[in-house]
Amino acid sequence: MPNRTIPDIVIGRLPQYLRSLQRMESENRLITSSQELAERLGISAAQIRKDLSLFGEFGKQGTGYNIHFLIEKLRAILKVDRIWDIVVVGAGDIGSALARYQGFANRGFRIVMVFDKDPNKIGMQIGNFIVQDSKYLSETIQRAGIKIGMIAVPSTEAQSVADQLIQGGVRAILNYAPISINVPPYVRVQYIDPVIHLQRMTYYLD
Amino acid sequence: MPNRTIPDIVIGRLPQYLRSLQRMESENRLITSSQELAERLGISAAQIRKDLSLFGEFGKQGTGYNIHFLIEKLRAILKVDRIWDIVVVGAGDIGSALARYQGFANRGFRIVMVFDKDPNKIGMQIGNFIVQDSKYLSETIQRAGIKIGMIAVPSTEAQSVADQLIQGGVRAILNYAPISINVPPYVRVQYIDPVIHLQRMTYYLD
Repeated sequence: MPNRTIPDIVIGRLPQYLRSLQRMESENRLITSSQELAERLGISAAQIRKDLSLFGEFGKQGTGYNIHFLIEKLRAILKVDRIWDIVVVGAGDIGSALARYQGFANRGFRIVMVFDKDPNKIGMQIGNFIVQDSKYLSETIQRAGIKIGMIAVPSTEAQSVADQLIQGGVRAILNYAPISINVPPYVRVQYIDPVIHLQRMTYYLD
Repeated sequence: MPNRTIPDIVIGRLPQYLRSLQRMESENRLITSSQELAERLGISAAQIRKDLSLFGEFGKQGTGYNIHFLIEKLRAILKVDRIWDIVVVGAGDIGSALARYQGFANRGFRIVMVFDKDPNKIGMQIGNFIVQDSKYLSETIQRAGIKIGMIAVPSTEAQSVADQLIQGGVRAILNYAPISINVPPYVRVQYIDPVIHLQRMTYYLD
């Protein structure tokens, strides 16, 4: 698995299913339904059943989904049944927030290094990390085998940081800078852009 | 407009079209095509044409889309042809990053107030803002007519802050706390959850 090509839009919904299921499990729930997931997520029950059916037979007609079983399956599909190490570049407000963020635990990720190029920030402690000098970014992450990077530098620096990350072996980038970056086809990029989310809501405001 | 019900999934793509178009305009481009947008966004050209056609006739077969015209149309549809005032609750790392964020300019939003309940933070300056006491959150935002709030407090506080925001008249919430909040049906919520974006990428990693 994946033994056939699953559309990226489906892959994009799986983390949402996983988050909802993990929330249900934390409420000591055992069984759920596509209808309940649909209500929690605002995605149609038919769509959810269709998405999940692409990966096998997870529920029986009428009995619903076993929450724990489906969580384990989704974690394996998304490859978060392991812990991925992450490097953060940029020790400003956003980088610091990420370094201290409590939301990664038990979800497949941990930040292991924080870099910055500002001499005033290098050596500083943020959360559990000592800020390292970006000058050695590529070599350090390559040695550590890190595949995921987060960019939290100003827009003007984002492309050059992306290039260094990729040179150091990073294959997935989460970009917080409000600018798009160019990467080779074998590298994935996702953007955190609050404005995209805000604009999606203003449509509905009076 | 909207004179018929447009699926929310379509609304969710419009901000991405707008961002790409604004980037093209900043590159002094005049005309684009659904093919070019498709390449930049990883959404099919057919889907883009279909989405846009729901709002009228924006391009002519063979001549492409006028970038400036389409930007103005999308800004009107998404109601970001005006400036929305935003309140930030939580003056920690994330709230501070938001208060100083440069990515809102020219995209329809501006932060106007920052609140916290911590006596050590109240009165502190962050960017251009003096942190205000959350005790007066509902009344203050109601008086100012603020409709959009950002939650940047710990998970344990998120629901209570959401309740205060809604009591004060907020109808759209961007939640940075890694927890889901319950809101009445007339309030929209979007989540910023980096793990969702990360999990979408690990599927593709080896």
